[in-house]
Amino acid sequence: MQLETLTIVGVGLIGGSIGLAARRRGAARHILGVGWRAETLETARRLGAIDQGFLALAPAVSNADLVVFCTPVQIIAGQVLEAAHSCRPGALLTDAGSTKAALVAAIEAGLPGNVRFVGSHPLAGSEKRGPEHADPNLFQDRLTIVTPTSRTSPEALERTSTFWQALGSKVKQMTPADHDAALAFTSHLPHLLAAALAGALPDRLRELTATGYRDTTRIAAGDPTLWTGIFLQNREAVLAALDQLSSQLDSLRSVLAAGDERILHQLLEQAKRVRDALGS
Amino acid sequence: MQLETLTIVGVGLIGGSIGLAARRRGAARHILGVGWRAETLETARRLGAIDQGFLALAPAVSNADLVVFCTPVQIIAGQVLEAAHSCRPGALLTDAGSTKAALVAAIEAGLPGNVRFVGSHPLAGSEKRGPEHADPNLFQDRLTIVTPTSRTSPEALERTSTFWQALGSKVKQMTPADHDAALAFTSHLPHLLAAALAGALPDRLRELTATGYRDTTRIAAGDPTLWTGIFLQNREAVLAALDQLSSQLDSLRSVLAAGDERILHQLLEQAKRVRDALGS
Repeated sequence: MQLETLTIVGVGLIGGSIGLAARRRGAARHILGVGWRAETLETARRLGAIDQGFLALAPAVSNADLVVFCTPVQIIAGQVLEAAHSCRPGALLTDAGSTKAALVAAIEAGLPGNVRFVGSHPLAGSEKRGPEHADPNLFQDRLTIVTPTSRTSPEALERTSTFWQALGSKVKQMTPADHDAALAFTSHLPHLLAAALAGALPDRLRELTATGYRDTTRIAAGDPTLWTGIFLQNREAVLAALDQLSSQLDSLRSVLAAGDERILHQLLEQAKRVRDALGS
Repeated sequence: MQLETLTIVGVGLIGGSIGLAARRRGAARHILGVGWRAETLETARRLGAIDQGFLALAPAVSNADLVVFCTPVQIIAGQVLEAAHSCRPGALLTDAGSTKAALVAAIEAGLPGNVRFVGSHPLAGSEKRGPEHADPNLFQDRLTIVTPTSRTSPEALERTSTFWQALGSKVKQMTPADHDAALAFTSHLPHLLAAALAGALPDRLRELTATGYRDTTRIAAGDPTLWTGIFLQNREAVLAALDQLSSQLDSLRSVLAAGDERILHQLLEQAKRVRDALGS
């Protein structure tokens, strides 16, 4: 498939990478970008991520075959509903947000009947921001979750999956709720832990950190506004994941307090097995 | 300074890196290694980390000016006391263990009067193991903590500091107890968190992990035997650090449960500030 016009709303690290990947792989003939700041749009254009930048949604989406929203999760639903009214009939809209249930529900409740929306979440990214960190291979061999519902047409689902595959990604279907419960554990919880660990570090101990501490807290450098939105949109699932982790920590605490060498070794060995299986 | 003979007990990642750094920087004329397995010693010799390998302590330390113990923390004290009886008068012994108070106390209680011991901990390493991962620049611009006590002679402390500086390291003095409290927070606690997070991951969620989860859990791939020893040797300080982290997590939990966007953003911003200050 080649799209005639692809519009990317939000040309930061993810949006910029979508543009670069689509161009390199010939997935779209024209690539338009929407942003809040002319400077960011110009950077994205200069790097080849988009052909043309727009500061408003309507003119950028009016001719698009596909519009992908790469903005903070708390504003995606509003933008999709706003853009939908300027899209031509048959246009497909999707997103790259880290949470799905709340925004998919809000969008399905208000979407005009002549356009389609399918939620997406490419499991790729970085704690960095901006189109200058975009990477045309960001999605290569990574997994993108698409989240159809009972209201999703098979044809829209197929087009969404084909788009991500065209960028080099593998695709997996999950319900929005299953996605959010899973990502609460594999992505949002690690961020909360990293933030807790970094936030609790007294100044005088900074010089005593080494690679282990730095690896464990790396994602705490992520954008606070972006992550505040993610945590609030997925609050219940994140709280459940946190409680699950807290019981695991309580077990480790009891075993350590009891000085039980054998069980402590077993728990660390089990953790190592899981981590080794994930690769570097 | 150039040592005539440096003996490294335990030629894994740390011991091997000490050998490579000492050779490259001309810090020792002869470098001997002690290990349990002939094969590991042969690897270390082939890579240039040691000149000669020994399967027993006594013959390897008898002519050493400096002996550095790079073995698991739970066996360092016993090895130092055993080796001390075979050392020549005036020999200096040190170690690279991740905990200090318990082993320094055990060593000072039993050390013969004609040799010296000063505890050390280079803040460098990796979750990898073995001399094949040794790196001559492992200590370059990193910090090594040396932990003198009221029984440490200024001359032994000076020689120990000079040795680590000769390998490219900066050196900082702390008491064994201060070291253990600090490292409980900056190193042992992150390991415990990484292990809890990895250990709690259900199999079905493995494919849904991305770079954030992988960074946060990377150190859980460390050697379980090594880390069981570290946790047990530094049990009280690790439990205190864990309790500190648990209150930080409880605060985050309450703020999230209350949906307090402003405070959540502040906490994430504070964590980002700390993490940004540490660099990559």
